Amino acid sequence: MGGDHGLAVTIPAAVNLLRTHSHVFVHLVGQQVAIEQSLSRYRNLDPTRFAVVHANDVVTMDDPPAQALRGKKDSSMRVAINLVKEGVAQACVSAGNTGALMAIARFVLKTLPGIDRPAIATAMPTMHHGMSTVLDLGANVDCTAEHLLQFASMGSALVSALQGKMNPAVGLLNIGEEIIKGNDTVKQAAELLRQSNLNFYGNVEGNDIYKGTVDVVVCDGFVGNIALKASEGVAQLMSGTIRDEFQRSWFSRLCAVLAYPILRRVKRRLDHRRYNGASLLGLRGVVIKSHGSADAFAFECALVRAHDAVQNGLLEKITQAMVPLSAEADAA
Amino acid sequence: MGGDHGLAVTIPAAVNLLRTHSHVFVHLVGQQVAIEQSLSRYRNLDPTRFAVVHANDVVTMDDPPAQALRGKKDSSMRVAINLVKEGVAQACVSAGNTGALMAIARFVLKTLPGIDRPAIATAMPTMHHGMSTVLDLGANVDCTAEHLLQFASMGSALVSALQGKMNPAVGLLNIGEEIIKGNDTVKQAAELLRQSNLNFYGNVEGNDIYKGTVDVVVCDGFVGNIALKASEGVAQLMSGTIRDEFQRSWFSRLCAVLAYPILRRVKRRLDHRRYNGASLLGLRGVVIKSHGSADAFAFECALVRAHDAVQNGLLEKITQAMVPLSAEADAA
Repeated sequence: MGGDHGLAVTIPAAVNLLRTHSHVFVHLVGQQVAIEQSLSRYRNLDPTRFAVVHANDVVTMDDPPAQALRGKKDSSMRVAINLVKEGVAQACVSAGNTGALMAIARFVLKTLPGIDRPAIATAMPTMHHGMSTVLDLGANVDCTAEHLLQFASMGSALVSALQGKMNPAVGLLNIGEEIIKGNDTVKQAAELLRQSNLNFYGNVEGNDIYKGTVDVVVCDGFVGNIALKASEGVAQLMSGTIRDEFQRSWFSRLCAVLAYPILRRVKRRLDHRRYNGASLLGLRGVVIKSHGSADAFAFECALVRAHDAVQNGLLEKITQAMVPLSAEADAA
Repeated sequence: MGGDHGLAVTIPAAVNLLRTHSHVFVHLVGQQVAIEQSLSRYRNLDPTRFAVVHANDVVTMDDPPAQALRGKKDSSMRVAINLVKEGVAQACVSAGNTGALMAIARFVLKTLPGIDRPAIATAMPTMHHGMSTVLDLGANVDCTAEHLLQFASMGSALVSALQGKMNPAVGLLNIGEEIIKGNDTVKQAAELLRQSNLNFYGNVEGNDIYKGTVDVVVCDGFVGNIALKASEGVAQLMSGTIRDEFQRSWFSRLCAVLAYPILRRVKRRLDHRRYNGASLLGLRGVVIKSHGSADAFAFECALVRAHDAVQNGLLEKITQAMVPLSAEADAA
């Protein structure tokens, strides 16, 4: 039900997922009448591969997380996460209110052993057609060094689950590569990472996110959110300026027509929709948050990400990754 | 002497400044023989408008600030800042090691009354041909709310000096616009800003830097540095991808030739060289840091920025801006 476009986006994406992934079963959670109306447009849907699960309430984008958690116990978000809790569904995907989704998921599912705080991770495009995974992106504004170490383990597990990479390289986001750089928390986290069994590259800087220097970039949620939003801002400024200049005169409009296939390829390579679907990591269940403004293609990417995370045993990988950390904590 | 290119960049930029600004006098500080050799290429230089000031040492990009400060007392950086201290020069511009420049400038010049810590500020391009000024960009990795308030006052003074804006709008960089967002320091800073006589807009997010929502964006140096570097990373990724795709085939290369004037206009509008010259604010003297990789055009922009800051009374404006803050602190 959530996001800027609601069912107009989520239903076509779900229908497409059913077409491309023949072993998937989809629970469509929300207001039954509206969902069935949306579905009536599609013919030849196999009724054994999906179910409509009614939920009375909808969490709005403005609901404070506490209110969504306590005041809307029959929201589509809550009902969907309950399905994961009960083992009826293996993953939940939502385009709704991030804070509410995190609060409900954390309350209902609880965290995995050894995880103090869940984190939000997303993939970003890098040079040479690669990608890097950044976390946390806003779930935790104040973090200790131990939290950053946990994020590193979870991010490493996510990359090995979704990209099939063994031993992904982990970088710590900082204001310089040298060991002496950064605030105390970051310096302590670097020390913990060096002692861990992760493939720790060392400190990385903001531009390394897009250079693809490492597979996983670790930071607290305050820094991560601002880095991500600043990046969005630059991308919008650049694409806006390019659009402006190609529309400036009849000659530039003609050039735009000629250059269209090239500009389209550029757009496709950098298409943020392909990276849609942030993982809420550290919970006892797979929960994926789609961008609120996602279109059907972007939402389908988030659905595929949820599918892949389940298929490749993300939760088991995170649990395994936490074992050495817990052992160390016990020893200490 | 500093930066990636040294005299090959700084000398032509200085010569050009002399040509375009008829009332400026330039002290060229560094290794005399090398400087004079660089100057010998230019004819018709008016010898009454510049002086070569010899300095034995050069601070390298790798020198730790403490070493540059204590071990190289005859460096070009130190000698140049001494000229400002003595009132012989009104501003110092360097493309060298940022940490060393800040350490030396702070030690030699001291801070203005009411300023606990100097900050680094730079201008960024925004939509609709505007610009926003962001600080701090890395001088202070741990900040209190009071420091952020001082940064806001200094940033506001800088914008009114360099852009002639009365009462510039100030935003506090945060992970959401709502008052409840952010860590404790940021929430306290917002409260101080609301009580101040600055034109406080409220919280802004990372993308607002490039939207031009406010004139001044305030943050601690850790966040500011990472936001800036992440932005650089995205810009490089996008321009690299565009270049790649326009070089892909003979057809795309032909399109590139046709679209060249358009792409050049895009580049000019977003040209980071035009924004070169970060201000070290809060010192008893104007000190401008050029990007290390600056070319002659970019370095000249930094020189012009220094000139404008002096011409428009930046130091007086900052001192005035600090008066109400000191009065409040005294009252408290």
